[in-house]
Amino acid sequence: MSDASYDVVGIGNAIVDIIARCDEAFLSNHGMEKGFMQLISAGQANELYGDMGTAIEQSGGSAANSCAGIASFGGKCAFIGRVAGDQFGKIFAHDIRAVGVAYDTPASDAGLPTARCLVLVTPDGERTMNTFLGASTELGAGDVDGALIASAQVTYLEGYLFDKPQAKAAFVEAAKLAGKAGRKVALTLSDAFCVDRHREDFLELVRGGVDILFANETEITSLYQMNAFDDAAGAVRAECEIAVLTRSEAGAVIISGNETIHVPANPVERVVDATGAGDLYAAGFLYGLTSAQSLETCGKLGALAASEIISHIGARPEGSLKDLAKAKGLLS
Amino acid sequence: MSDASYDVVGIGNAIVDIIARCDEAFLSNHGMEKGFMQLISAGQANELYGDMGTAIEQSGGSAANSCAGIASFGGKCAFIGRVAGDQFGKIFAHDIRAVGVAYDTPASDAGLPTARCLVLVTPDGERTMNTFLGASTELGAGDVDGALIASAQVTYLEGYLFDKPQAKAAFVEAAKLAGKAGRKVALTLSDAFCVDRHREDFLELVRGGVDILFANETEITSLYQMNAFDDAAGAVRAECEIAVLTRSEAGAVIISGNETIHVPANPVERVVDATGAGDLYAAGFLYGLTSAQSLETCGKLGALAASEIISHIGARPEGSLKDLAKAKGLLS
Repeated sequence: MSDASYDVVGIGNAIVDIIARCDEAFLSNHGMEKGFMQLISAGQANELYGDMGTAIEQSGGSAANSCAGIASFGGKCAFIGRVAGDQFGKIFAHDIRAVGVAYDTPASDAGLPTARCLVLVTPDGERTMNTFLGASTELGAGDVDGALIASAQVTYLEGYLFDKPQAKAAFVEAAKLAGKAGRKVALTLSDAFCVDRHREDFLELVRGGVDILFANETEITSLYQMNAFDDAAGAVRAECEIAVLTRSEAGAVIISGNETIHVPANPVERVVDATGAGDLYAAGFLYGLTSAQSLETCGKLGALAASEIISHIGARPEGSLKDLAKAKGLLS
Repeated sequence: MSDASYDVVGIGNAIVDIIARCDEAFLSNHGMEKGFMQLISAGQANELYGDMGTAIEQSGGSAANSCAGIASFGGKCAFIGRVAGDQFGKIFAHDIRAVGVAYDTPASDAGLPTARCLVLVTPDGERTMNTFLGASTELGAGDVDGALIASAQVTYLEGYLFDKPQAKAAFVEAAKLAGKAGRKVALTLSDAFCVDRHREDFLELVRGGVDILFANETEITSLYQMNAFDDAAGAVRAECEIAVLTRSEAGAVIISGNETIHVPANPVERVVDATGAGDLYAAGFLYGLTSAQSLETCGKLGALAASEIISHIGARPEGSLKDLAKAKGLLS
């Protein structure tokens, strides 16, 4: 795959995170399911923001976080996703370009503001997300640049895009284009409730066009409606070239053909904020894969990136992941 | 002073910080003086932002940071400062209210955007600031609520306000109103270059209306144009009821009448980001003073708050300073 201009092109929602700490009672008082993502309206976003404590703002978005992570490892990345021309849109565009990710999707002028995610971080470091998709939903099949897709080793798609029909169409179009160009398609299931909302469509895509699947334990068991992780892991083995199943502090299981590789989590002193753990795991894995590392090393790079991201607030790396990987002897 | 509704009312620039890491070369390539603040135009801000790496956004502003800190100790605070009605203005207003600070200055409609400060943090944790004042300069004497000033034990003013004539008028008006109401006036000199720009006016205010002066070593020596810290400390003794002179890791010297109290810095594992160190020192000190603590305890509370703020990115406390002070046995 060395003729590719890009290692990875990511497609996803272009979001700015608004991150605040809260206690457990805040979640239950606001009817949130801890650890999950729910979609909210503009009005709900305003109301919830009013109730939240002092916050910080930082660019986010699942696939966008992964792209930023891959770039931080030294990989060549492009991102496709829609912002509006407002302040948050400028922040998103600045931050993703500042880490070296190519980003050229035109800003939406449909009147919806840039997407925001209200992230609540509880004292245990778990994050609970409330997303107003705004301009992100304006992403359409026309935004998917066929030449760009064909020029990347891997097209990486976030499952969250399935939540809006137009974005879903863009998603399916991208998977088709990548397949036609003989490129790999990677997908993250994103969230167990998101899987619940779109199970049949996800299954169709996993069976038809996905080469590399990322999922955590709740997502993969939700996809196959199986209670046991091992059963779901068995089911996915037959359907994807590579499945990367993450289990938080229990590490990850990589399934590929007859192989089953267990990669332990990288220990952290304290989980400060779990936001972006899955996104950065995918970043490390995809960077490894597109630079021809073994699956085990791919898993270790994922675990390393995830451990960096959960040791501080926010879902974008604070330092160079390449330097970190070199210091750990994972890259030369 | 127990008849006061507020412990402290702060008056300052209402700013959102845009914080990014950079190396030493970035500062010199952009002609910045490390560790200081310079004022920049909207155009310069756009250009510099384009050159900066991935950033986070967080509410800032010197006196506003102090108010947030006092509130985090459990103090009653109000803040006066101007934002615009834009996204950054909403962020600023949300964050200061979210920590319990009363904030009612109407947003400016003069067309200038909310002030922003581009903060560059070098690997040593030092911060270098580039401020576009925007709507902050629209603060005028009419925004200074006499009843509010009269209802607070201390009116706290940031020297940065001197950089614009209209804000300076508001500043002088506030000091007068506080004096008339028999309340205390506190001033921070803010920045050595700011002192340079307005030395005579600062000296007049320090001699005429300031009861409590906050300054670091470069600021106090700049004010009196003396090379030696001890000489400057001697000069200020005759002019203010209390002078709080901070010297980074060398701790602080509190001067009051014949008393000279040395308070060591609170040790930190690593200086992650020095932004807000002075603001939070002032917060701890003023919280102590308005809750009738000894000057030494005031200094220790200042050192504790400063050590919290420099151990993470951003100039707003990450947790409750009251809880932290209790854990250290400084408050009961």
